[in-house]
Amino acid sequence: DYAKLDTTRKERTGFAEVVYCARKADEHLLNIYQKLYKEDGEVFGTRASQHQYELVKSVLPQVVYDPVSGILKIEKEKEHIGKVTVCTAGTADISVAEEAAQTAEYFGTHVERIYDVGVSGMHRLFSRLDTIQDANCVVAVAGMEGALASVMGGLVKRPVIAVPTSVGYGASFHGLSALLTMINSCANGIAVVNIDNGYGAGYLATQINRLAEGK
Amino acid sequence: DYAKLDTTRKERTGFAEVVYCARKADEHLLNIYQKLYKEDGEVFGTRASQHQYELVKSVLPQVVYDPVSGILKIEKEKEHIGKVTVCTAGTADISVAEEAAQTAEYFGTHVERIYDVGVSGMHRLFSRLDTIQDANCVVAVAGMEGALASVMGGLVKRPVIAVPTSVGYGASFHGLSALLTMINSCANGIAVVNIDNGYGAGYLATQINRLAEGK
Amino acid sequence: DYAKLDTTRKERTGFAEVVYCARKADEHLLNIYQKLYKEDGEVFGTRASQHQYELVKSVLPQVVYDPVSGILKIEKEKEHIGKVTVCTAGTADISVAEEAAQTAEYFGTHVERIYDVGVSGMHRLFSRLDTIQDANCVVAVAGMEGALASVMGGLVKRPVIAVPTSVGYGASFHGLSALLTMINSCANGIAVVNIDNGYGAGYLATQINRLAEGK
Amino acid sequence: DYAKLDTTRKERTGFAEVVYCARKADEHLLNIYQKLYKEDGEVFGTRASQHQYELVKSVLPQVVYDPVSGILKIEKEKEHIGKVTVCTAGTADISVAEEAAQTAEYFGTHVERIYDVGVSGMHRLFSRLDTIQDANCVVAVAGMEGALASVMGGLVKRPVIAVPTSVGYGASFHGLSALLTMINSCANGIAVVNIDNGYGAGYLATQINRLAEGK
Amino acid sequence: DYAKLDTTRKERTGFAEVVYCARKADEHLLNIYQKLYKEDGEVFGTRASQHQYELVKSVLPQVVYDPVSGILKIEKEKEHIGKVTVCTAGTADISVAEEAAQTAEYFGTHVERIYDVGVSGMHRLFSRLDTIQDANCVVAVAGMEGALASVMGGLVKRPVIAVPTSVGYGASFHGLSALLTMINSCANGIAVVNIDNGYGAGYLATQINRLAEGK
Amino acid sequence: DYAKLDTTRKERTGFAEVVYCARKADEHLLNIYQKLYKEDGEVFGTRASQHQYELVKSVLPQVVYDPVSGILKIEKEKEHIGKVTVCTAGTADISVAEEAAQTAEYFGTHVERIYDVGVSGMHRLFSRLDTIQDANCVVAVAGMEGALASVMGGLVKRPVIAVPTSVGYGASFHGLSALLTMINSCANGIAVVNIDNGYGAGYLATQINRLAEGK
Amino acid sequence: DYAKLDTTRKERTGFAEVVYCARKADEHLLNIYQKLYKEDGEVFGTRASQHQYELVKSVLPQVVYDPVSGILKIEKEKEHIGKVTVCTAGTADISVAEEAAQTAEYFGTHVERIYDVGVSGMHRLFSRLDTIQDANCVVAVAGMEGALASVMGGLVKRPVIAVPTSVGYGASFHGLSALLTMINSCANGIAVVNIDNGYGAGYLATQINRLAEGK
Amino acid sequence: DYAKLDTTRKERTGFAEVVYCARKADEHLLNIYQKLYKEDGEVFGTRASQHQYELVKSVLPQVVYDPVSGILKIEKEKEHIGKVTVCTAGTADISVAEEAAQTAEYFGTHVERIYDVGVSGMHRLFSRLDTIQDANCVVAVAGMEGALASVMGGLVKRPVIAVPTSVGYGASFHGLSALLTMINSCANGIAVVNIDNGYGAGYLATQINRLAEGK
Ligand SMILES: Nc1ncnc2c1ncn2[C@@H]1O[C@H](COP(=O)(O)O)[C@@H](O)[C@H]1O
Ligand SMILES: Nc1ncnc2c1ncn2[C@@H]1O[C@H](COP(=O)(O)O)[C@@H](O)[C@H]1O
Ligand SMILES: Nc1ncnc2c1ncn2[C@@H]1O[C@H](COP(=O)(O)O)[C@@H](O)[C@H]1O
Ligand SMILES: Nc1ncnc2c1ncn2[C@@H]1O[C@H](COP(=O)(O)O)[C@@H](O)[C@H]1O
Ligand SMILES: [Mg+2]
Ligand SMILES: [Mg+2]
Ligand SMILES: [Mg+2]
Ligand SMILES: [Mg+2]
Ligand SMILES: [Mg+2]
Ligand SMILES: [Mg+2]
Ligand SMILES: [Mg+2]
Ligand SMILES: [Mg+2]
Repeated sequence: DYAKLDTTRKERTGFAEVVYCARKADEHLLNIYQKLYKEDGEVFGTRASQHQYELVKSVLPQVVYDPVSGILKIEKEKEHIGKVTVCTAGTADISVAEEAAQTAEYFGTHVERIYDVGVSGMHRLFSRLDTIQDANCVVAVAGMEGALASVMGGLVKRPVIAVPTSVGYGASFHGLSALLTMINSCANGIAVVNIDNGYGAGYLATQINRLAEGK
Repeated sequence: DYAKLDTTRKERTGFAEVVYCARKADEHLLNIYQKLYKEDGEVFGTRASQHQYELVKSVLPQVVYDPVSGILKIEKEKEHIGKVTVCTAGTADISVAEEAAQTAEYFGTHVERIYDVGVSGMHRLFSRLDTIQDANCVVAVAGMEGALASVMGGLVKRPVIAVPTSVGYGASFHGLSALLTMINSCANGIAVVNIDNGYGAGYLATQINRLAEGK
Repeated sequence: DYAKLDTTRKERTGFAEVVYCARKADEHLLNIYQKLYKEDGEVFGTRASQHQYELVKSVLPQVVYDPVSGILKIEKEKEHIGKVTVCTAGTADISVAEEAAQTAEYFGTHVERIYDVGVSGMHRLFSRLDTIQDANCVVAVAGMEGALASVMGGLVKRPVIAVPTSVGYGASFHGLSALLTMINSCANGIAVVNIDNGYGAGYLATQINRLAEGK
Repeated sequence: DYAKLDTTRKERTGFAEVVYCARKADEHLLNIYQKLYKEDGEVFGTRASQHQYELVKSVLPQVVYDPVSGILKIEKEKEHIGKVTVCTAGTADISVAEEAAQTAEYFGTHVERIYDVGVSGMHRLFSRLDTIQDANCVVAVAGMEGALASVMGGLVKRPVIAVPTSVGYGASFHGLSALLTMINSCANGIAVVNIDNGYGAGYLATQINRLAEGK
Repeated sequence: DYAKLDTTRKERTGFAEVVYCARKADEHLLNIYQKLYKEDGEVFGTRASQHQYELVKSVLPQVVYDPVSGILKIEKEKEHIGKVTVCTAGTADISVAEEAAQTAEYFGTHVERIYDVGVSGMHRLFSRLDTIQDANCVVAVAGMEGALASVMGGLVKRPVIAVPTSVGYGASFHGLSALLTMINSCANGIAVVNIDNGYGAGYLATQINRLAEGK
Repeated sequence: DYAKLDTTRKERTGFAEVVYCARKADEHLLNIYQKLYKEDGEVFGTRASQHQYELVKSVLPQVVYDPVSGILKIEKEKEHIGKVTVCTAGTADISVAEEAAQTAEYFGTHVERIYDVGVSGMHRLFSRLDTIQDANCVVAVAGMEGALASVMGGLVKRPVIAVPTSVGYGASFHGLSALLTMINSCANGIAVVNIDNGYGAGYLATQINRLAEGK
Repeated sequence: DYAKLDTTRKERTGFAEVVYCARKADEHLLNIYQKLYKEDGEVFGTRASQHQYELVKSVLPQVVYDPVSGILKIEKEKEHIGKVTVCTAGTADISVAEEAAQTAEYFGTHVERIYDVGVSGMHRLFSRLDTIQDANCVVAVAGMEGALASVMGGLVKRPVIAVPTSVGYGASFHGLSALLTMINSCANGIAVVNIDNGYGAGYLATQINRLAEGK
Repeated sequence: DYAKLDTTRKERTGFAEVVYCARKADEHLLNIYQKLYKEDGEVFGTRASQHQYELVKSVLPQVVYDPVSGILKIEKEKEHIGKVTVCTAGTADISVAEEAAQTAEYFGTHVERIYDVGVSGMHRLFSRLDTIQDANCVVAVAGMEGALASVMGGLVKRPVIAVPTSVGYGASFHGLSALLTMINSCANGIAVVNIDNGYGAGYLATQINRLAEGK
């Protein structure tokens, strides 16, 4: 058997293993979903295709698939603590934002969403300032030039997790432009993750939220 | 004699020749300043060094040097028409902004300056909105992540000329980050020029200002 | 509902909202087209596919689709003022040029087209010099090495909006080569937009044209 | 007066203004140090040179300079709460690490340092695991291939702030290599900041530490 | 006939010709497989498709295809000497690792495999240290940030052959991130080959293994 | 003795060895100049510094130094055959153009120079068309956006050797922009050499000129 | 009608117009082939698809298609003068080499082909040295690391036209690696064209061959 | 005390600690040299400056400095086993080659040097073929286009360690060109290390040489 289960992960890091579905062979994927479901009573995967949904559903019929984010999960009832606000610049960034939001929720975080508030129409952002400023941290998801993170950084006391996305064309170079923008932000308190890495942002947001809630 | 005077330039383009002082040999520079001054009664150079100032001053004592922008000029009294607003994100961008502002002024444009209004403290920008919104065009000068241009673009009816600067370090890659930000702006009406090219911005601003004033 | 209508945009910027069709879900696209058409009696979208055309046509049968530029629109009769000239270097650049030209026309600009006048056969460009020199601004669309913008810049008094395209292969790196050429132009008065961003060029051209026509 | 004091910053963000000394003119620097000292009774600057130290010392003799980190400060006695651990891969990364550590301390964070524990000799890191695992967050500072952050991420429950440095040569491309490593980390909970941006890491660590301490 | 058989290769280099199947025309591929099989009684190809498998099978029915690595071979019984250990960071790196392992085996090397021991869960690697430390050389296959090679380098006396893979997304830039990590490794004794070049790693490992075994 | 004299080079290639002076140790340089002068009665070096000039002059007083091109030579009287035209876009490109021109002359080529005829003022180029069109080949030297080569290519029957230069700033990236322009030229018959490689252009021009003159 | 026929091209440059088939609409392609065939009695196109072949064949049944090079042509009997040798490093480079060879032949050049003589087996190249050394120029076509051009340059008196190809994977970055190799060649007399630009190489080779043959 | 001595390194890896002198503070450097000398009776540092030589000499007068390679060492008499051949393409690559050669010698390897045998004059290399083919491994050091490694790879049975150097200008991009060449080599058995990393090559060569000699 090729893959090694990282059995002490939850102990070491406080987070259960999450399945990265992309590129996984059908048989391998089925195995993992069944194994993790059996162990934990729940299982959470990212970047799943419609085909993978149907595959897993045939053995775990209660599995739920969200085609926007590509998340494929069986989720237990749980309490959601604290508050993390997830924002996007445009509507095309929502798929990445949902990966972040649902990851955080799976790990027990209370999430609020504010989408399509990019800097070319700043009044949309300002009308939601309260919801942004009282979160334990903010996730700013943006492609193209990615300026949303800098503007956020200047408005809040708490960390801003910046997720560059591959939304854009031409010189956006598949997210490089937004990544550089966010890494070079003139605002402070900006934590950058990989292009389109909603999962990583949701994880980091959960870590910060847990600290804030004394967990 | 190596260099060719572009004698029909003013006719063709409406702008007199400007001296790019960087890399010019002393003798060559002196020649050009004397020649252009004789022809036009004024002369304007960019990217001049302190040494070049002293050199030119020895033969044209009325020459004026601005060490911040590197501009070395003898300027006739002239009318300044219309209105162009030049903004910067930080104080380190001012040298480029001054190159833009003084170039535009040399070509007969009325210029207003609003400096140090970067997006990490947006209230500074909003308190000057009137001066920004009634200009014929706005020049936005910013390094690091260069988000200023996008924010401007969402606030004004008129063109925004975006000048990325080499201010920053690390992954700013000498202005590449700000350049990509500005080229990928989610806002509309953003005209981008080269990194640190205040001269080009002042020239373009003058072209637009002249059109707006019916010249 | 995810997307936020930027309802004050026309007031703030003087331009109605335009639909970026690429990546939009069918249902979402239909919604937006119907909503905007209802509000304004016209609607304009870029980067639409044949499939999207048929979709929208099923509910708005008067919609018109141009497969060359990917524009999908219902357009009211309107006056076209001033003059903007749109040029291309080759025939493959025409799709981007049409995006620029039709965007400008939608916003009320009078446009003239001069296509396939690249610098490897300069006589083609020179034979149309009059039409180029009396425009309020020129849009130069070129891929590969993108030299057209520089040549234009030396011939006209008015701004040149340079649009690099992804036309080319090998070291054109999907438009990067043309973008760098245009940003580094030795000619003055060159305003650069993103690779393949015909829409942005048409918008900027309209801003300049309006100023020139006293609007 | 060029620069705009961002007077509401502390209110908005919870952090006082910090001086970025690099590129500042002498007169300008003196002004700022005096003004901020007068207001707050303390002042903190980064990237200061020996010359700037002597300059400021001539008017504020109590100023303290650390040539390793380039920090120039007058610091009030204050309580240091919580715990942040700052690690480096090599000794050459210490200048950046000290910028991070002293920034965090200035903002009231208790900091522990573990330097020269790079992944080519992992036992050094493992011998300090306790100090790493009970921090509210860890700052991992590394140049060259920057693998330290990934290893850390697999060992702790709390966020890891990853600071790529420009230490290295050849294909390290002035920190690009370490930046890419950290952004692509296979470990979770990695928050990346700009190359050599110790200040940004110290700021972010303080935000997280405050949340953890209920501030 | 286009292709030139490198008939003295085995003499010069000690290795028989291997077929690079990708991009080869059907007829050409059949020819080569038949020719090499006739000469050597065995034949080995990399990057073969399912289609190519079926093609070759129709004339050489004993051919064996491994869809994971893309290897298509007829292999004689042979002795496998020495010891090379092939490791991967994740499960997605296994296709490249198998190319390396099977290449080495084809050339007579004894190979051990340790897969899915990436640095985010270091205990998995440490539990296999013996098998790693007594190999003549180690092949470390990793995508994303590629930190596995550096960690290995610090643990063994023998050369580590580092194979960056294109596994990852966003700023992994199709393996560039892992390549830079490995080239800049702070550990010593790291020999880097091209992205996804399992073949090259297996070849190099064989050369080293042969030297160690006195061949 | 470290360096190996390539004694059969002239036979093999038709060209004597040329000295690349940059980075050479004093003693080493002196040796080479004396040796080559003794053998051939002439010697030609590129990229020499003022210091190297004085050094060589102390033992070979007849040596001649051109600080513009950095060429340091003792040249025999010789016939100059055929015709090569060397053009530059700006005055700053002249140092590279002189390296090309003097290299070609040293190898027996008749050279004509046309400098400062960049594409922003095309009339300057057109007024010299005859001299350009009857050359055996044309060398086009240009920095910034490097459009000169494309325009040339459309005007002549003979090969154009394109030399990108590092003249420019910002996004010229030390000549990368001009290099990409020239490699992607829409005109035909463009042979590109390395950035600032006047020597290589002069060599290639000589090869072509010799063929044209039946040598 | 969009496209402009460059009717004076043959006069100006000595070469008839060639069709770049890629991306051309069916109707447009048919038009051009018919027009050019009518004018010249022959027509030559590059980068044509099987579909385009069938299309053109339906109206011009005598058209000939080579699927390896993608050339689609009707060619008159003509004399082939002089000698150009076209070499490739591997078999995958042959498609680009054939584009070069057939272009040169179409323009009246006598061509010899030497394929699959890459530098990893130098004896293959050396056994053909005579054919290489008596050509008027050599075209060296190579992907991956592209070292063939440098080796050639050291062996011949005449110009080497270097064509980097996109053959390779991983860090070959679609031909960038071979392009950089060739541009930086330590050998002299190397003229580089764009990645995969066989056409450009065949054109340049013809220009040089004509000069050598006194045309 | 900042730096951590990696005291178990020799045990773990078989190699003593080597000093990387660049960037080290004087006091720190002195400390390390004295400590290591005391422990081992010898000490070896790379990238040392003339100033550092004089510094160390003042306390350890027997220290020896080689300004070409920057190596600063006190070396015990020792046996040198096996055979490694170090080659360079040009004379400017010798500084890196010496770092490799002397590192290998310090670790007990017998080294032969063959310098200035670049591929533009292949006869120089072929005349030394015996010395190259009977080494346990070959180190190929080359800048500019770095083709030497590929040619070597095709000629030998044993591993080739390829060291790209920063020698070159323009599009060599400080060694990137040579690095890509070597990583993409069409020859097999090429192990690449970082740009200018002679030390790493010497280390790796020693590992291979030891295996070959049964150590
Ligand atoms: N979308 C994602 N992006 C990055 N990492 C992920 C993502 N989804 C899951 N992961 C991580 O990948 C690990 C699983 O990788 P694997 O062992 O290859 O299935 C999980 O435990 C997570 O740490
Ligand atoms: N700072 C600047 N950046 C870019 N172009 C400039 C600048 N200053 C002057 N120029 C242009 O450079 C021309 C002079 O170049 P030259 O003939 O080389 O002296 C002027 O006519 C302007 O078009
Ligand atoms: N996966 C691979 N990656 C790189 N090189 C390979 C690979 N497989 C085979 N080769 C090499 O490519 C040669 C065959 O190339 P070709 O003559 O084009 O078929 C073999 O002899 C090997 O040296
Ligand atoms: N400016 C230059 N650029 C590139 N190559 C040069 C230049 N000048 C001389 N060369 C080449 O470098 C060789 C000498 O190199 P070296 O043996 O290192 O002195 C000459 O024979 C030329 O082939
Ligand atoms: Mg929107
Ligand atoms: Mg400020
Ligand atoms: Mg055409
Ligand atoms: Mg250390
Ligand atoms: Mg795993
Ligand atoms: Mg000029
Ligand atoms: Mg072959
Ligand atoms: Mg030499």
